[in-house]
Amino acid sequence: MDGREFRIPNSCYRDSMPPIALLTDFGHDDHYVGVVHAVLEREYPGVARIDLGHAVPAGDIWTASFQLRCAWPHLPSACVVLAVIDPGVGTSRRAVAVEINGRYLVAPDNGLAAAVGTAATAVELDWRTMGLEKPSATFHGRDLFAPAAARLAAGGSIGDLGAAIDRGGLVQCPLPEPSPSDRGLEGVILVVDRFGNLATNVRDDEHPGLTEARWRADSVARRVTTYAEGAPDEVVLLEGSAGYLELAVNCGSAADATGLERGDAVLMR
Amino acid sequence: MDGREFRIPNSCYRDSMPPIALLTDFGHDDHYVGVVHAVLEREYPGVARIDLGHAVPAGDIWTASFQLRCAWPHLPSACVVLAVIDPGVGTSRRAVAVEINGRYLVAPDNGLAAAVGTAATAVELDWRTMGLEKPSATFHGRDLFAPAAARLAAGGSIGDLGAAIDRGGLVQCPLPEPSPSDRGLEGVILVVDRFGNLATNVRDDEHPGLTEARWRADSVARRVTTYAEGAPDEVVLLEGSAGYLELAVNCGSAADATGLERGDAVLMR
Amino acid sequence: MDGREFRIPNSCYRDSMPPIALLTDFGHDDHYVGVVHAVLEREYPGVARIDLGHAVPAGDIWTASFQLRCAWPHLPSACVVLAVIDPGVGTSRRAVAVEINGRYLVAPDNGLAAAVGTAATAVELDWRTMGLEKPSATFHGRDLFAPAAARLAAGGSIGDLGAAIDRGGLVQCPLPEPSPSDRGLEGVILVVDRFGNLATNVRDDEHPGLTEARWRADSVARRVTTYAEGAPDEVVLLEGSAGYLELAVNCGSAADATGLERGDAVLMR
Repeated sequence: MDGREFRIPNSCYRDSMPPIALLTDFGHDDHYVGVVHAVLEREYPGVARIDLGHAVPAGDIWTASFQLRCAWPHLPSACVVLAVIDPGVGTSRRAVAVEINGRYLVAPDNGLAAAVGTAATAVELDWRTMGLEKPSATFHGRDLFAPAAARLAAGGSIGDLGAAIDRGGLVQCPLPEPSPSDRGLEGVILVVDRFGNLATNVRDDEHPGLTEARWRADSVARRVTTYAEGAPDEVVLLEGSAGYLELAVNCGSAADATGLERGDAVLMR
Repeated sequence: MDGREFRIPNSCYRDSMPPIALLTDFGHDDHYVGVVHAVLEREYPGVARIDLGHAVPAGDIWTASFQLRCAWPHLPSACVVLAVIDPGVGTSRRAVAVEINGRYLVAPDNGLAAAVGTAATAVELDWRTMGLEKPSATFHGRDLFAPAAARLAAGGSIGDLGAAIDRGGLVQCPLPEPSPSDRGLEGVILVVDRFGNLATNVRDDEHPGLTEARWRADSVARRVTTYAEGAPDEVVLLEGSAGYLELAVNCGSAADATGLERGDAVLMR
Repeated sequence: MDGREFRIPNSCYRDSMPPIALLTDFGHDDHYVGVVHAVLEREYPGVARIDLGHAVPAGDIWTASFQLRCAWPHLPSACVVLAVIDPGVGTSRRAVAVEINGRYLVAPDNGLAAAVGTAATAVELDWRTMGLEKPSATFHGRDLFAPAAARLAAGGSIGDLGAAIDRGGLVQCPLPEPSPSDRGLEGVILVVDRFGNLATNVRDDEHPGLTEARWRADSVARRVTTYAEGAPDEVVLLEGSAGYLELAVNCGSAADATGLERGDAVLMR
């Protein structure tokens, strides 16, 4: 049986109509996310919109980069990601669009645009080139990034958004890589999720065969495959859903059990 | 005037394209909800997606069952509900799809799949039958439930998702039924909502004519029809929007006023 | 280059299919928002739905009016706004639909319906005229406002929703206007956003040339154009993204820095 045969039997959509996925730090208390959705709908009526998340802590490019990396492999093969964590709005930081493996990523050039791989193409967004009104000084998500994303989704050319830039010159993603040492593989906690799971920067596919994690002299988590293999209150090490090794407690919080926070060191062996 | 005539005058949708409604405990802080949306859009481009809610407390099948019951009667007559509150992910708990009154419900077999009525058909989801890659150990919402929901929405047969199972063998919903006693009808608080209203498990249509509720020796709430009938700070009893009797305070919080919590007893007469 | 050319090259939507934008105080913990979405999808399959926001504090018409004003100019030229902040549900407060500049606003007549301008037409929603079942006493968002919004989006006539009412008789929006005094322009804080920015009721386009704000005898904020112009911890005054002057701290919280809250006075000069 082929999964393809389940697709779009009575839909008017075509694969050539990519959705727009949104990732911001705007939160849910204000109208900011809603206004960006309104602009997308206004600029490209009927476009499919996906909320990847809006609760990234304000200005937290680290967490946003992690979430983007986790979502990226599961997006439709053609899509546009609108990622706006933009503490530098109104400064000279660049606004960019990059093409990576057939997808587009529209974001500030603050590390986020480099979070998911090497760009095949990169342009600096230019409101004049795009024929837009001058953006406000404080809300480029609404005035610059959203119109750019809508145009890419509608089939516009990335080259029509602004001038090409050196894709190697993008600000690097802040997420650290693990480093080998004579003690083992030195990783760090990248994020704490709502369930209290602690995702590290160690990917199982890049560092296979790791069987334990240590974070204090007297602490160790053994490697398991599912949450449920852990004894009550036991901190275990397993491969999380995005491929990163994580510390977890079955039906509990590894964050509470360990006291570990983002950026704390974890030694893998 | 017939409500039907207002429908789809210039829409390309047809009634045969059912939406997918999502209910999870994934929260809004992480990327989990967004990734499930991405998979739905990837598997069935353009499908209408409805967020029933994602803030169910982690692993709380009780609250999820209540919310599902409240939403169920108002869903489109053809739709697919994707309900993932799944503390047993990776264990031998079954993943199932059930057909109930022409709608589909895709959920873990942990009580949730039995929350809204008796299934006409039930199957155990099988990734091999569906031709999927082997699901991750920790995120069946993304890897198993979402593809299953997309296929049902796209017109796929429930029988193509896995083998039929005994619909009577599904794990029962944990929500308790009220019980008559010589003191009256013994109910319990099911949920506390954001407004501080306390929904009980007593349905007005099943137990008509109840005129008061008691929760302590010295406390009583009289039956009213609208919030506004309550005096300032008065705790009143009324039929909530989903048909369950609830305790409420006009422009206030019955939870604060009574100190009652989920599972606490309320005597109705 | 004309922005129009980027629109809908392969979409089946037409500009004549307006989206529905939702603004409520239902929060995200319960099923209420999801049920309203379900009703919209049920009544008008495939309609584009935009969440302007659902985290307005319970019953807070002030904040909802502000958010609606901020979003309004950015909505598609044809759209329906469903705004339900409705502490008076079940009382004699009217439910209304108004037409303003080609858009529709469906809301309780409690100030919200008058928040964004003068109505060209106004009707009182009548479930009998609409051929609906009698609404519940507690959830008109689901039973009355949502079906009304779906019909307007589907091309139904506002006159078919209920009888025309005097548009001048709508309850006034509670947001105060700034007032000139011999000390300067007396404004107030309208809202505190998630970033700690303090939006005032003073619009730059209505009161051009203001260069500073004072809120205590010894405090002053100078006018800047972008957040980044502020020195570390400096409270600055700038035009926010919706046109209102606001107090802000670059990469910090003006709310924390000043202790100001909603309704507090700010003197502009």
